[in-house]
Parts: sequence; structure tokens; C-alpha cells
Amino acid sequence: MPTITITTDFGDADGFTGVLKGVITGIAPDSRVVDIAHAIPAGDAVHAAFVLRNSYLYFPPGTIHIVIVDPGVGGSRRALAVRGAGQYFVAPDNGVLAWVVSELAGAGEELEAWSLDDERFRLAPVSNTFHGRDIFAPAAAYLAMGIDPDELGPRLVAALEPEGDLSGGDVQGLLPRPGDEEGAGRVIHIDTFGNCITTIEIAGLPADMVEDPESVTIEIESRNGIISLIGLLNSYESVAAGQPVALEGSSGLLEIAINGDSAARTLAIERGDSVRCLRIRRR
Amino acid sequence: MPTITITTDFGDADGFTGVLKGVITGIAPDSRVVDIAHAIPAGDAVHAAFVLRNSYLYFPPGTIHIVIVDPGVGGSRRALAVRGAGQYFVAPDNGVLAWVVSELAGAGEELEAWSLDDERFRLAPVSNTFHGRDIFAPAAAYLAMGIDPDELGPRLVAALEPEGDLSGGDVQGLLPRPGDEEGAGRVIHIDTFGNCITTIEIAGLPADMVEDPESVTIEIESRNGIISLIGLLNSYESVAAGQPVALEGSSGLLEIAINGDSAARTLAIERGDSVRCLRIRRR
Amino acid sequence: MPTITITTDFGDADGFTGVLKGVITGIAPDSRVVDIAHAIPAGDAVHAAFVLRNSYLYFPPGTIHIVIVDPGVGGSRRALAVRGAGQYFVAPDNGVLAWVVSELAGAGEELEAWSLDDERFRLAPVSNTFHGRDIFAPAAAYLAMGIDPDELGPRLVAALEPEGDLSGGDVQGLLPRPGDEEGAGRVIHIDTFGNCITTIEIAGLPADMVEDPESVTIEIESRNGIISLIGLLNSYESVAAGQPVALEGSSGLLEIAINGDSAARTLAIERGDSVRCLRIRRR
Repeated sequence: MPTITITTDFGDADGFTGVLKGVITGIAPDSRVVDIAHAIPAGDAVHAAFVLRNSYLYFPPGTIHIVIVDPGVGGSRRALAVRGAGQYFVAPDNGVLAWVVSELAGAGEELEAWSLDDERFRLAPVSNTFHGRDIFAPAAAYLAMGIDPDELGPRLVAALEPEGDLSGGDVQGLLPRPGDEEGAGRVIHIDTFGNCITTIEIAGLPADMVEDPESVTIEIESRNGIISLIGLLNSYESVAAGQPVALEGSSGLLEIAINGDSAARTLAIERGDSVRCLRIRRR
Repeated sequence: MPTITITTDFGDADGFTGVLKGVITGIAPDSRVVDIAHAIPAGDAVHAAFVLRNSYLYFPPGTIHIVIVDPGVGGSRRALAVRGAGQYFVAPDNGVLAWVVSELAGAGEELEAWSLDDERFRLAPVSNTFHGRDIFAPAAAYLAMGIDPDELGPRLVAALEPEGDLSGGDVQGLLPRPGDEEGAGRVIHIDTFGNCITTIEIAGLPADMVEDPESVTIEIESRNGIISLIGLLNSYESVAAGQPVALEGSSGLLEIAINGDSAARTLAIERGDSVRCLRIRRR
Repeated sequence: MPTITITTDFGDADGFTGVLKGVITGIAPDSRVVDIAHAIPAGDAVHAAFVLRNSYLYFPPGTIHIVIVDPGVGGSRRALAVRGAGQYFVAPDNGVLAWVVSELAGAGEELEAWSLDDERFRLAPVSNTFHGRDIFAPAAAYLAMGIDPDELGPRLVAALEPEGDLSGGDVQGLLPRPGDEEGAGRVIHIDTFGNCITTIEIAGLPADMVEDPESVTIEIESRNGIISLIGLLNSYESVAAGQPVALEGSSGLLEIAINGDSAARTLAIERGDSVRCLRIRRR
């Protein structure tokens, strides 16, 4: 029986995630349900897209990921199931899947998508405020039971095109783009520890930077001005406690941190801040 | 093996819920344990009663719900197991079960209750500060193993009477009452998103309101004065971003929300505020 | 298949714990994974050591405990597996295991330790910022699958000596010490409710205190001066609402609480504050 993961902005005070698990247990009693994150800021599709992108690869083939960050619930946005890389992603089409879809498409993966319209696989009646319970959890549970996704609703094509819904909204504005300057990007995520993760892939930097990482200068346009750090270093402890450090984070992306403290708070860095890697060495 | 759910005010910093699961695993190793909520405000039995009422129906028959919001632990309050609607509820008798019991009794369900007194089904020694670990988790685990509840302690009758313990304290003051004016009630819960859920059942409104929901006026007595909203609308997106909306929430109760923001904060609404639905349409 | 527990400072916003579970599911698909705590303050090894010490005994033999509070990740600290009391503990050697190891050693338990060096049982490549994912979770999962721990890396001896790494850092400064005055200790933990738990074991107090607990005077050196409480009482409700009380907590340790409120906030008590039990009764 496949694993079902759940990523939401539900917090832990209202029982919303528990209800999803109750619904899943009723339909797919032997499934394994794993929480990924529930303290995503309310309605923050960019945060959810980042967390999902960093998590899904560590789950076995067949895993079904539910992502419910859904401020548009009950409105015109569609409810989707997407299949790619041997996994399913079940979520609203508001951009929470944009990064995963973009990466999989970029890697040449075949992607398929369905709109979760068939009433047979929803709770009845469907509320206008809690589709996690009424649409997404049942869909994920039926997929775990092995249903053919074509049963869940019509197959979509346009959603997965370069300009389709899944390239979505706020997320799209932050993701790496073909036209980006080499070694340039943006802060895409601030984690619990205040580490600032960027869209810049270390493995994608120009060869001379990768070969001589200690000579790279990293510039961050924070709201307090430009911050320059010299050298891509190895670990948080490569600098003294309280000092800033640029390094390769656990997902292969350039990360700005402070040894033992919050870089976001200390350096006034925010999501969306521009970041560049430069060859110019300061003297 | 039945599912056991856990709802507490334990937070996620001290390991209390983990210990409950350890105890359960030792007694009923094949049970499925599901977290419902652990960020209930410390000692807030009303919040717990609301969360349980909105969650239990989504779990399969046989499910055993543990609720530990227990500021009176070690004092004179009793430890209970209640059976109704094919499920068990294991909790202190401080009102956390009041809403579920009231609804089940109102629906004509036969309810039974036991006091968890038998030392054979407690950890030894029983502490005076952590009955979740020493009394409630073992009782739930033994119920999951199929024990006859009469083994756990004496069967109670008075607790389930109209004036009995389970009609409980602070919760009772907020629940719907037979004498309530038609279409009137109170804010019973503020959720993570700042949505304000009331005790008013949409399906229980007068027929003319249900038939013409857009003509209903909703008045909330907030601490900043009376707020009037016109129309029971469909979804958060029925109004522009930042605008207030009254609608049917996911549990069938009248809900006051703001599209994309917190109604509780923006409109200064608090739990206990009076709410009324009126036929008078503003012109 | 044994239970694997997880205790971290990861919070619930980034998906870190979910990734650990994904890795575990891939290696040991039938294991039962239980969360103990994830809201440990960032980098707080003392807090983690306390939570683990209070939790592990409630899990069945064979349980494998992962503890990731790891500010030194990627630096020189070692990654450990420790076996004692029929359980495994998998963690960095920064003191998070110090209390458990100290208690087990004090009870004459045979302890063994290994350094998790073998690349066959790590993810590849190993990042320098997320060893929970790359080293600790795989090691725990392979132990759950029954691997001989000698496969994971070299057996350690010195780590478990009185002056070894596991007696660790900040934790050691707070633990009970052989030279401690009888009935004296420190506040070791402030829990979610603001209860202040000390290192003083009630069962270890002098016999005349244990026999006449109501005559014991408890003195706490708070930052606002010395607080004196008379009597070791039974439960939070032994005093009126809002009043302070000293009592035996759920782990057998002396605890300072306020009935229905936070003792830490109200009495300005902090971790590390000195506490003494005295025979002198105030008149």
C-alpha cells in the first residue's frame, strides 16, 4: 500500500489534518500517512512549493503527495492530480506544484494531469471551505487503493504547458528562469533556523566557480543594502559562531546562513531578495 | 485493529504525545494512532470540545478518541470512557466531551460511560500530573485490544443526564440551547486562519432564510460594536480580497470570514460574541 | 519491526521531519515511526536531552530513538549510535544523549557506542547541513531492519567514559552531580505549561523529608530573588487557582508549578536556577 504525504498550512490547533487522516483511513485503511509540514504560513503557495520540491524525491515510487495551501477554496481554481516521476501530486492549481512540475518537465519527465471532478470520489456534500477533506483526501486515498486516475475526472493538457496553470502565480516569479544571468537568482525560502535558501544551484555555477569556490563573492540585495560574502564554504562551522557563511544547502542550492543564529533576522534578508555569485575577488 | 486518535494541549516541545504513543505501542502494537490537534490553548476545554465535535464523524466505526486537556489532573475530576455512535471517547470529565455527547444524545444515540478506576489497566504508579500517560492512553490501548469496558471501572449513569458532569462547565455556556432565539447563537471557535465559527446551524435556519440566503442579514456583537453583513454567500471568493463574508462553514455552521485575511483580528471578533441572523434586508 | 522515534528542533514548516520519514520508509517500509517532539528550541541540546530522558522508558524494547538537535552539523562532532537498556539511540555527540547515558550507566547498564562512518549506510552524497536525512535516518532504518551495528562504523569506547563526549557540554553542567548537596539541584526544564522541573529526585530526598513532605521548605533562586514554598503537595489542585505549588512531577522529579498558570512566567524562574529542599519549617 503506497505512502500518502500531507503538506498544509493547517497548523495544529483545529484538527484539520486529523480529519484528512480519518477520511483516508476510511477509504484506504492500510495506507501509511506521513506529515511533511503543517506550519506553512497561511495561504503561502510559494513556501509550499519549495517544501514539496525538497521532499518528494526522498519518498518511494508510488507515493501520493497531498498539498493543501488553498486560499481560493470554493472559487474557480481547479483541483488537480498530477503524475510524474512515478509519484502522484494532489493539490489545487494555484502554484503549489509549480516547482516540482517545472523541474520534472525540465528533466524530460512525462507528466500527466487530471481535474478531480467526479463526484463518486468526493465526500458528499462537498463544502465550499474544506476541499482538503471533501476532494483531495478522498482522491489521494482512492489513488492509494489503485484506482485508474482517468476515473477521477478529465485528463488535462494545457495545465502542463509552459504558460499553463501549473506554472502558477507567485511561485513563477521566484523560480529560476531561462533568461537569468549566470549565477544569479533570488532568495526562495527562509527556513525555521533563519537560513536563507536561494534559487541558485551550486552544480549549475560556471566551472571556474565550482573549481575555486573560496574565491566566489556572493552579493545579497537585502533591505538594509548589499551584503557581500567571500567564498562558498563547507559547513556552518566553517566560520566562527555568529558569523555569516555562504554554502551549498542540503538541496544543492546556495544558502546564506549564520553559524548558530538566524541569517534572515540578523542580516535583514527576505524572500525575493536578489542574489548573485561573482568572480571578482575582493582584496 | 481500531484507530486511536489523540487531541491535546501538549504542544510539540515536551514529548508528552510521544510518550502516549509509546504506552499505546506497548499495549496495542498494531493500532493506528492519528494526531488530531496538539496546539489547543493550555487548559481550553471549549476549544477541545469544538475540535472533537468536528473531527470524530470522519473516522471509521470502532475508533477510540483520546482527549487530554486536563488542567484538573490529580484533583477530583473523574477519568471517563464514553461509548456512542460506535466509537469510544476517553477523556477527563471537564467538558471536553460535552458537545459530542450533547449532539449524540440529541440524535437519540444510546450513550454509555465508565469511570477509569481499575488499577489493572493503569500504569503503576499513577502520577498526579500526567494521567494522559498513566490512565487515558492505557485505557484507550486496552479498548483497542478489545477489552470489555466494564473491566475498566464502574459504569456511570448520572454523568450523562442533562445536569450531569458531561454537560460540563465552560463548554455548556457556549453550546446551542433549547431556549435560543431562532437563528441566534454565539461564536464558538476562532480557527488558525482567523475564521469565526458560530453555533448557528445553517440547515436549522428558518425556511425563508435557507431559500433566500442572500437576503439574510448577519449581526455580530464584536467588542468594537455591532458588525452587519448582508447575505449568506457561497465561498471566501464570493467577495473581493480583504472583504468580510458570512457563509456556511465546513461543519454546517455559520462562519464569519475575510477573503485572504483573519476575520477575528480584522473585525475584533472573539469567542463568545453573540451572532444573529435577521430577515430585515438593508436598503 | 521495531518502532523508530524522532526528536528534533525542526519545527513543522520546512518538511525536514517528513524527509526523514521518507528516507526511513524507503529502507524499512514496515517500521512504525513516532514523533516525540519537533518544537525543541533551535540548537538546544539540554532541552532535547531532558525530553529523551523522560520519553524513552515508555517505549518497547528494540525501539530506536533518533535525536537531531545538531547545530554542529558538517563540523567535527561525530554521529553516534548508542545501545543500552535494549534500545538504540542515534544522534550527534553534542550532549543530547548525556542524561540517558548518565542514568543508564548509573544503573549499571552495559552501554555500547558506534561512530556512523560507513558510507554504505548513508545517503550519497552526504550534505554538510542535513545529516538527519543523510546519516541518522538511514542508520536508524538499517538498525530497524536488523543490521549488526558493527557494520555501521567503528565501536567507540572513550565516548562513554566519565569524561567522554557523551557526558557532553551544556547538559553536563545541569545534571545531578555526585558532589551535589543533599536535596539540592537546578531547574532543568520549563515545559509548555510553564511548569519548572528540577533535577531533584523526590525518591532520593532524605528519609525524614519523604516521610513528612508537607514540612519541607523549597527555595528557588529566581532572577527576582529567592522564592520559598512550604510543603511538597499532591497535585496542582492542592492549592487554589493562581497559587504556586511544589510537587512530584510525572518523572519523579521535584516540580514548581502554578495551578492554572505558568510558574516560569509568573515567578520569573529560568532553566539553571538553583533549588534546595530544606527541613527548616517557617513559622
